[in-house]
Amino acid sequence: MERVSAAANHPSNPSHPGEPHRATETTETSPPTGPSAPNGPRTPRTAQVIVASTRAAAGVYPDRTGPVIDAWLGERGFTLGERRVVPDGDPVGAALRTALDAGVDLVITTGGTGVSPHDLTPEQTLPHLDRLLPGLMEEFRRRGAASTPLALISRGHAGIARGRTLVINLPGSPNGVKDGLGLLDEVVNHILDQLHGVDH
Amino acid sequence: MERVSAAANHPSNPSHPGEPHRATETTETSPPTGPSAPNGPRTPRTAQVIVASTRAAAGVYPDRTGPVIDAWLGERGFTLGERRVVPDGDPVGAALRTALDAGVDLVITTGGTGVSPHDLTPEQTLPHLDRLLPGLMEEFRRRGAASTPLALISRGHAGIARGRTLVINLPGSPNGVKDGLGLLDEVVNHILDQLHGVDH
Amino acid sequence: MERVSAAANHPSNPSHPGEPHRATETTETSPPTGPSAPNGPRTPRTAQVIVASTRAAAGVYPDRTGPVIDAWLGERGFTLGERRVVPDGDPVGAALRTALDAGVDLVITTGGTGVSPHDLTPEQTLPHLDRLLPGLMEEFRRRGAASTPLALISRGHAGIARGRTLVINLPGSPNGVKDGLGLLDEVVNHILDQLHGVDH
Repeated sequence: MERVSAAANHPSNPSHPGEPHRATETTETSPPTGPSAPNGPRTPRTAQVIVASTRAAAGVYPDRTGPVIDAWLGERGFTLGERRVVPDGDPVGAALRTALDAGVDLVITTGGTGVSPHDLTPEQTLPHLDRLLPGLMEEFRRRGAASTPLALISRGHAGIARGRTLVINLPGSPNGVKDGLGLLDEVVNHILDQLHGVDH
Repeated sequence: MERVSAAANHPSNPSHPGEPHRATETTETSPPTGPSAPNGPRTPRTAQVIVASTRAAAGVYPDRTGPVIDAWLGERGFTLGERRVVPDGDPVGAALRTALDAGVDLVITTGGTGVSPHDLTPEQTLPHLDRLLPGLMEEFRRRGAASTPLALISRGHAGIARGRTLVINLPGSPNGVKDGLGLLDEVVNHILDQLHGVDH
Repeated sequence: MERVSAAANHPSNPSHPGEPHRATETTETSPPTGPSAPNGPRTPRTAQVIVASTRAAAGVYPDRTGPVIDAWLGERGFTLGERRVVPDGDPVGAALRTALDAGVDLVITTGGTGVSPHDLTPEQTLPHLDRLLPGLMEEFRRRGAASTPLALISRGHAGIARGRTLVINLPGSPNGVKDGLGLLDEVVNHILDQLHGVDH
């Protein structure tokens, strides 16, 4: 995994809507002041997106949700690792392990949370989670169910890995990702602060 | 378990309301076209109902919910195995195993999901599930809680067994079964299609 | 753990609002007739509150929620064991074990359910639970989320220990405790009746 050296924090990037705000070598002149730092300057946080899709990894299907998540993260001041697009199954676990080894603060996966035989992201994720956060997925499914009962079938997990990384499994559907990011917007800073010992 | 050889698909059977549409030896002239086949003909799916009730198995209490579930399944084109009415505990697991051995598509249990010492259906079910579908039970309990907070106590599981069979534990109360079947109506076809590799 | 010999059942105690209705040696002249005995006299039930807070145990922080829970229990006719205020982590499990050894009907913990490194109450509780009641915590988090999405992060468990004791992990926040007690009000009698073989 290629890690970047500084945060890309460009909340508006109208010329490339939907494009990830990939970090490049830059000299930061100020700390991030986006939504991730409501109480003042804060060390940029790191995040990694993992796209679980055998077809997207083979290039026969566009990765529609990965760029959306990368953009969301960039707008919130996260320093992004290069997005990984991997086939369903073991490669998802391997990519997650790499991200955890790198010590990122947040890993968001997209895809592989359904009940098809090839949907294996929850199985690849669970062994890495020390503490589950079932309430996040309950709320995520509940919000999705307002649009479609099929949201109830999502099997993704959310939890804490290695005592410091928040991991959440979002589905591969754009609507599911939208719901999931909306929910994260409400809780992610609090969770990361708690993990890092910032008292609220 | 006696298996039937053809689907009973009689959506309306006014002369026997609440009676299971038990399959009999028939010569089918057309594939099922009920709610289970919204997109056209489809191989009849199979289902098995297991009633967990020591009192009903002993004949000292009527099996009120089994016939309701059988009727619901029959109306949706499922080929039904003979309903099993078994005592709480190990016999529930044994009946479930038999149904899974037979490769049915859907198993619905009713009864034994509470917190009384004899309520053991979740314990008998969980070891058979490869993948849990917690969102189904969350939604089931939530819907029930709109009528009574006691619905929150239901401990039933929903999940996939042996990669192909959807299993769901409904309570033994008529209202609980009604809520559960209403929820299944919204998701069962999608789940079974996904399990069987039908792309949506 | 010091156990008391008789129920304290003083639903109103205006001179000591928020104070636990600690049982003292009294001669009961009548069985409890509070909310825990809606269908007539019933043997007083026993309860134990465990406060998980390293700072409260050290006396550097007030125990705000323990007295509230004790008062709630007293008003409902529970015989209370002396409230335990213990540091986060292993002492929580030890206090829980002592309460289970004493055979109390209900254990309520408060604190240690978040995602900070010192929040370990769920981990200390889970090994003691034979049967989980996930619906209680789902509903608890859902109610809390109406006020703040941070309620979704609560990781507490509810379940049955040793076949007879209801255990529930509430957070350390006054609002969380209020929500949790409100929910218990709706289900606790039914659960304890079921555990003790009282048919509904």
